[in-house]
Amino acid sequence: MSYDIIIIGSGPAGYVAAIRAGQTGLKTLIIDKKYVGGMCLNWGCIPTKSILESAKLFNRIKNSAAEFGIGGYNPAELSFDWNQAVKRSKGIVQKLSRGIEYLWKKNGVEFLQAEAKIVSPHEVEADNRIYTTKNIIIATGSRPVKQSLFPEAIELEDFFKLDRLPEKPILYGRGAIILEFAQLFSMLGKSPTIISNGSPLIPKLDAHLEAYVVRKLKKDKIAVISDADISIDKKGVHHGDSLLEYDAVINCSLREAVLIDSNVKIELLDGYIKTDEHYQTSIQGIFAAGDVNGHSYLAHAASAQGLSIINFINGIDDSTAVAYPINIYSDPEIAQLGVTETELKESGIEYQVKEMPLIANGKALAEGASEGFIRLLFESKYRQVLGVQIVAANATDLISEAGILLELEGTVYDLARTVHAHPTIAEVFMDVAKDIE
Amino acid sequence: MSYDIIIIGSGPAGYVAAIRAGQTGLKTLIIDKKYVGGMCLNWGCIPTKSILESAKLFNRIKNSAAEFGIGGYNPAELSFDWNQAVKRSKGIVQKLSRGIEYLWKKNGVEFLQAEAKIVSPHEVEADNRIYTTKNIIIATGSRPVKQSLFPEAIELEDFFKLDRLPEKPILYGRGAIILEFAQLFSMLGKSPTIISNGSPLIPKLDAHLEAYVVRKLKKDKIAVISDADISIDKKGVHHGDSLLEYDAVINCSLREAVLIDSNVKIELLDGYIKTDEHYQTSIQGIFAAGDVNGHSYLAHAASAQGLSIINFINGIDDSTAVAYPINIYSDPEIAQLGVTETELKESGIEYQVKEMPLIANGKALAEGASEGFIRLLFESKYRQVLGVQIVAANATDLISEAGILLELEGTVYDLARTVHAHPTIAEVFMDVAKDIE
Repeated sequence: MSYDIIIIGSGPAGYVAAIRAGQTGLKTLIIDKKYVGGMCLNWGCIPTKSILESAKLFNRIKNSAAEFGIGGYNPAELSFDWNQAVKRSKGIVQKLSRGIEYLWKKNGVEFLQAEAKIVSPHEVEADNRIYTTKNIIIATGSRPVKQSLFPEAIELEDFFKLDRLPEKPILYGRGAIILEFAQLFSMLGKSPTIISNGSPLIPKLDAHLEAYVVRKLKKDKIAVISDADISIDKKGVHHGDSLLEYDAVINCSLREAVLIDSNVKIELLDGYIKTDEHYQTSIQGIFAAGDVNGHSYLAHAASAQGLSIINFINGIDDSTAVAYPINIYSDPEIAQLGVTETELKESGIEYQVKEMPLIANGKALAEGASEGFIRLLFESKYRQVLGVQIVAANATDLISEAGILLELEGTVYDLARTVHAHPTIAEVFMDVAKDIE
Repeated sequence: MSYDIIIIGSGPAGYVAAIRAGQTGLKTLIIDKKYVGGMCLNWGCIPTKSILESAKLFNRIKNSAAEFGIGGYNPAELSFDWNQAVKRSKGIVQKLSRGIEYLWKKNGVEFLQAEAKIVSPHEVEADNRIYTTKNIIIATGSRPVKQSLFPEAIELEDFFKLDRLPEKPILYGRGAIILEFAQLFSMLGKSPTIISNGSPLIPKLDAHLEAYVVRKLKKDKIAVISDADISIDKKGVHHGDSLLEYDAVINCSLREAVLIDSNVKIELLDGYIKTDEHYQTSIQGIFAAGDVNGHSYLAHAASAQGLSIINFINGIDDSTAVAYPINIYSDPEIAQLGVTETELKESGIEYQVKEMPLIANGKALAEGASEGFIRLLFESKYRQVLGVQIVAANATDLISEAGILLELEGTVYDLARTVHAHPTIAEVFMDVAKDIE
């Protein structure tokens, strides 16, 4: 069997690339050793967000529903059924993975569940067969780095398989997931402890947002300890003079590339597959998209790269600089797009920063969700907006307005003169821009 | 006492104009016969949205929380404390009205609670005094037209003063508010009946959205009757052969201008104060902003007009065509921006329409809110987006992305190449655009 393209890995890089490849008439095979949708769909974004929704609802009913006028239940007696929450999330995963398979089928994409090996630049071996192809995309993703400090740690991949939630988990590592998990446990009445293995707690976040996260964790009484301050012996984990109580460790470390078995030597860079501006590796015709190339750990970045490769194969060059929003599904949510203040300082661009809290926003108050702010970073002369940072209950959707603004190189003035509906949380965009003008 | 500007009415047109006037150094007096913030703040947008949030939460706990894994309560025993919900909304109103007063004070704006009368183009009488001024803004708003069919109907202004909610209310009239109120009652387990006094049910909405609303009401088993099909006698309200049971009527009629006592004859148009492109009335120096000029019933349109007048007085001409989003806080929410399909047909512009449902969107599924769609209307040649329509749980905030897109005259291509974060509901914008490309 001969293909135009073989894609190895069916996460957000691979499955999106496969659909586009099929749509554009390329004979396409996608191979995954596990599940359709990869980590994002099966044990990453989607289950995490589903379970976080459950936890946020639980927390809201427990702590706020009475204020909204809802009675007839006892907040102290509320319970959380972990297995039901997981069951619900699995239903969603199933629906989405069927959707992907439907789109593959519709666009003539073949799928194979097997371990794949690159035999030559134009040959892939899987399921004891050799498939020949013009192009290969490696989209095998990433996984949290295994930690020698806690070899017994539960991997994220296994987290949603747990029968019950730990009561006092240690979350070891750093990054957005550690914040999401800490709040997940905290909202469900558990007592998590974060042990960070580096600084900052959430890499790539603006220092202003990092500071907010640290304050927020403190306010929510979630302990954050550096692994430099602990020692482990037979008795357990010591922090200073005290012995830390815990019933599980979850590995929330930063991630490393999942590399693939290959007879062809593909050049690496810092452990990731090295790629050029078209995401092509050191071998012509072999591309790498998503986490495995080390450019980003974001699902939407992976999908964008996957599409870009298909465009390139089809002779369309779309390799322009693109801004990837960083979204954290914390409570409230955090979103960031464009440059950080540190990057602006380093660049030498003259800039200004303006921030407005949500506390005077009618819709946020109506929703009982007035914690947060919108922050604009813009260059001083033409006031083009270069960075947007949001903390808000719905920050991850709000940031999409900033996406269009940055894509179209809009200014503070454009933002100020765009009539935003009242009452909406997005009004704060207009308000902060008007305040600048 | 002599002023640069006297503003009569402190709703979204008036209070925003007052703040800007003060900021730009104009000596400003704002007069309201009732409360700071007008209808929107005191018995319109803000209390309605607060109470709707309560009802949505009640409905979600009653019907969906168990699915999310939440237990320890009996859905059948849940109760709704109307007075507590109203108390909460009053707290929000108070916070916002204090915020307005603070901003007035900070910017040197004087406030007077009194009935105002225009004595001459440069004189306003209030509280038995004459205030002289260079300019006047009439921002007295609107109110639902009194209905002779149901003279006992409760006015919206009095709705939030009710001790308890009616069980079987008739909602008489039409427009967005009738949908919001019908769902409010329905979500709280009451049995509302809509009696419409005209067609379409929600004026200015695209026919596609109107059709959705009609379907949605039917699905939710909310009766919609035309007032042409009823008769009223001593026994009650008859619909065909059956006698309609009801315990209250709420006046949800379309609105009429609240005019002001004036010795100066100000020209009207269809019952509204006639204004030119600068919102100036037939009398130089007297302006009219907000509902009273008949251009729009939207709070954000009122505020935009108020600002525009202050800019004009300060010698800045910003009278460009602006798109006002229409937001309905139904369940799910409905939002519309730009042209409707009917308008496109009439204009003769060659256009295309593309719609994508939320049902395959990961975040919508995770939130348990996958009812709805995003619909783009764009001209065929350059694919500039001319209209956006959204039905989604958070449509009223999502539409802000479309705001920027239309303001910057963006195309389907711009939308498609803007990386939207995953998983977000806003991704559907990108997906529908990619589907077109």
